[in-house]
Amino acid sequence: VSLATELAAIVGAEHVEADVWLTDASGLGASAPLLVHPASAEEVRRTVAWAYERGVAIVPVGGRSGYSGGIVPEGRDPLVAVALDRLNRVRSFDPLLWRIEVEAGVTTATVQRLARENGLLFPPDPGAPEQSQIGGNLATNAGGPHAFKYGVASHWVTGIEAVIAPGELARFGGPTRKDVAGYDLRGLLIGSEGTLGIITSAWLRLMPAPATAIPVIAGYPTIAAGVQAIEQALASNVVPAAIEYLQGDVLQHAPPPFLDASEIRFLVICEAESEAERDALLDALGPGARTYDATAVWRWRGGVSLVVRGVKGEKLAEDIAVPLDRLGEAIERTLEIGARNSLDACSWGHAGDGNIHSTFMFDPDDASDRARADAAAEDLFALARDLGGTVSGEHGVGKLKRGQLIGQWSEAAVGAHEAIKHALDPEGLFNPGTKDPRPVTAALVGDGSSTGIAS
Amino acid sequence: VSLATELAAIVGAEHVEADVWLTDASGLGASAPLLVHPASAEEVRRTVAWAYERGVAIVPVGGRSGYSGGIVPEGRDPLVAVALDRLNRVRSFDPLLWRIEVEAGVTTATVQRLARENGLLFPPDPGAPEQSQIGGNLATNAGGPHAFKYGVASHWVTGIEAVIAPGELARFGGPTRKDVAGYDLRGLLIGSEGTLGIITSAWLRLMPAPATAIPVIAGYPTIAAGVQAIEQALASNVVPAAIEYLQGDVLQHAPPPFLDASEIRFLVICEAESEAERDALLDALGPGARTYDATAVWRWRGGVSLVVRGVKGEKLAEDIAVPLDRLGEAIERTLEIGARNSLDACSWGHAGDGNIHSTFMFDPDDASDRARADAAAEDLFALARDLGGTVSGEHGVGKLKRGQLIGQWSEAAVGAHEAIKHALDPEGLFNPGTKDPRPVTAALVGDGSSTGIAS
Repeated sequence: VSLATELAAIVGAEHVEADVWLTDASGLGASAPLLVHPASAEEVRRTVAWAYERGVAIVPVGGRSGYSGGIVPEGRDPLVAVALDRLNRVRSFDPLLWRIEVEAGVTTATVQRLARENGLLFPPDPGAPEQSQIGGNLATNAGGPHAFKYGVASHWVTGIEAVIAPGELARFGGPTRKDVAGYDLRGLLIGSEGTLGIITSAWLRLMPAPATAIPVIAGYPTIAAGVQAIEQALASNVVPAAIEYLQGDVLQHAPPPFLDASEIRFLVICEAESEAERDALLDALGPGARTYDATAVWRWRGGVSLVVRGVKGEKLAEDIAVPLDRLGEAIERTLEIGARNSLDACSWGHAGDGNIHSTFMFDPDDASDRARADAAAEDLFALARDLGGTVSGEHGVGKLKRGQLIGQWSEAAVGAHEAIKHALDPEGLFNPGTKDPRPVTAALVGDGSSTGIAS
Repeated sequence: VSLATELAAIVGAEHVEADVWLTDASGLGASAPLLVHPASAEEVRRTVAWAYERGVAIVPVGGRSGYSGGIVPEGRDPLVAVALDRLNRVRSFDPLLWRIEVEAGVTTATVQRLARENGLLFPPDPGAPEQSQIGGNLATNAGGPHAFKYGVASHWVTGIEAVIAPGELARFGGPTRKDVAGYDLRGLLIGSEGTLGIITSAWLRLMPAPATAIPVIAGYPTIAAGVQAIEQALASNVVPAAIEYLQGDVLQHAPPPFLDASEIRFLVICEAESEAERDALLDALGPGARTYDATAVWRWRGGVSLVVRGVKGEKLAEDIAVPLDRLGEAIERTLEIGARNSLDACSWGHAGDGNIHSTFMFDPDDASDRARADAAAEDLFALARDLGGTVSGEHGVGKLKRGQLIGQWSEAAVGAHEAIKHALDPEGLFNPGTKDPRPVTAALVGDGSSTGIAS
């Protein structure tokens, strides 16, 4: 009996695919020998139990909108990829109690829409909400612009249901808003990128939607002037809902339709949620500051990444984060790294969280360009560590940043990370190669081609 | 060479004590054969390395204001208790960047005061701030009234420094506000009650202090009416900074000085942070609602626990939490549990989080009273599980609630908890007996007397 036949007995033959190319927004890709689409948490459990018994590697797959190649299969054969797209039910929704329980395959946009239609807000707002799924948001502990005021995804999760080794369905937390009865396994699985188990559903907190959202925007002639304005915003006694920046090159590639950015080298967007906050932020950002329409601002802001990608056909977009006092330096040095590697560089990001999307544009058909982009990424990770920051603020490590933790954390801390992995996944079957703290050389599965930036 | 002599070589002879009675606000107590006061993280590291090499159990001791007996030494001899009180330095404070790094022995009140003096707020507000230390706040992942809007302690921590087995100083995170490079060991150690390591310092986030705090208070004739008012507050489009309740018996024992509560069976306190919020909450809580002075309200509210303890000399005060829709039922059934066990019962707590301090008053010199209080606590834990809640919302498990997780989590989930413990503390030397998920019978150290409620 073939593996595919055995899987068909669990999920149904029509929900088993063979030799499926799996890729995400990182451009990395590889072929999965088998991909299944279970219909329920119980079918996920049975799939994992089956895999764990046979020593088959397991790769959870969400909306495929990640930026780190976390779903790119690698390192093992046999291997089964497990898509969560059919776990798309809203299990319960209590708008009056500010909570919702959704399965892992429900899209971020669905949760945001259900909340909005009931006067509520689900604050996490990573990009690509129509495509990304809650399971993936939690697997990476996703952030987004509004994480500055409202926190990252984990803060909005009171409980998860997950399939853990060797094939058990477990709940950690639930609808209760506070719980310290056990270790925070909820928080540990969140951000673990499918390497400790597969999240099958989550209880999410919601909150009343702010009455208004008013972007207050100002342009500056230098990075230093813009960073200084951000510090003034922090001194204004307001917690802006978001503090974003876009460096001048980004504005050239993706000019905002609502203002003339041709002379601007650094744009700051702060979001106010009341008229008093608006006035304080207008004052803090200086005489050039104006308010703009929130819908127009965020629609443009959400499209920046894709536009920049289109400039040369591909980009390496990282997500390092640094302490706030090193923000200006990190932005300046991103440009220097680009120049040093003969690449067009730019950056934008979540300034208030020190989380910068340093981006190197390149031609995907030019092997030399690609090699220089990889070298620039290494320089960037070294920069993050040098500034006391992190190689990943919100995208996750995936395949793209594996091996980097060893330089960021001490040997003892990395040892603790590895001990956790071994304790919860003793056979090492959950998403092999993703979030590896140390550099590894792993064999590929699938078509045997080298994992790399897909053309 | 005696163990005390060896420890003296690490921390200095004047910082080693023998046969010290350790107790906290739970009333549990036992004697520690040795208690040391290291002066630095490095001395903590050397103490742990020494203990781990010799198989000596390690009990971290903070401000001794906990409610669960987490610091009560038990189960092992030899054993060394490690007080963090000399780790009391503020390592860095950047008010303009909303952050502070403090050692574990700095009191909660010190952090709150430093923040306040700079126009900032450290939102976690567990009780006894002058006594409790940040290390203990994090060990229990403490909450408090304002956790409703602002989240529990973990949400305000961007990084920790901790001593882990077998005696290594490790950092997980730092001043950077977002970080997903490794597993969330930061979050895992927070709330682990000293059973996975000893936190020696923490990087805390702060925020601008809200301009105003306006308690909006109303009394109700029944629990049901009060719970309904809370639901109306949730429907008012405001996120109150706190939603507290006090059940009628509490008001008889500890009458508020600012209003006549003699006819009130259920008091609701919502806190507004603007005039608009005040008006919305006045409207939601109904015609009897009034505003009061925040200082007077919170001073009285902070003293309630001690007053209730004094009624009969001792109390069992638990901290179960339930889903919000079960709040009224949980409060009613707390009173029934008291009646069934012939105990005076009352409750108050953090209504918005479903976190209720169910309290049974008893005479500590009356063995029968004490036995009935213990039986009532068991009933209460069963109630929490029955309502889909947790045996501990914010106090931690300590010794008082050990063995209770097995009924709350599935076997697979408890197995994961135990795997984490074994992975990070393979010799089981960190705080033995605390946060044990299963019932255990452990031998005592110290004077050989049974651990119990101290008189």
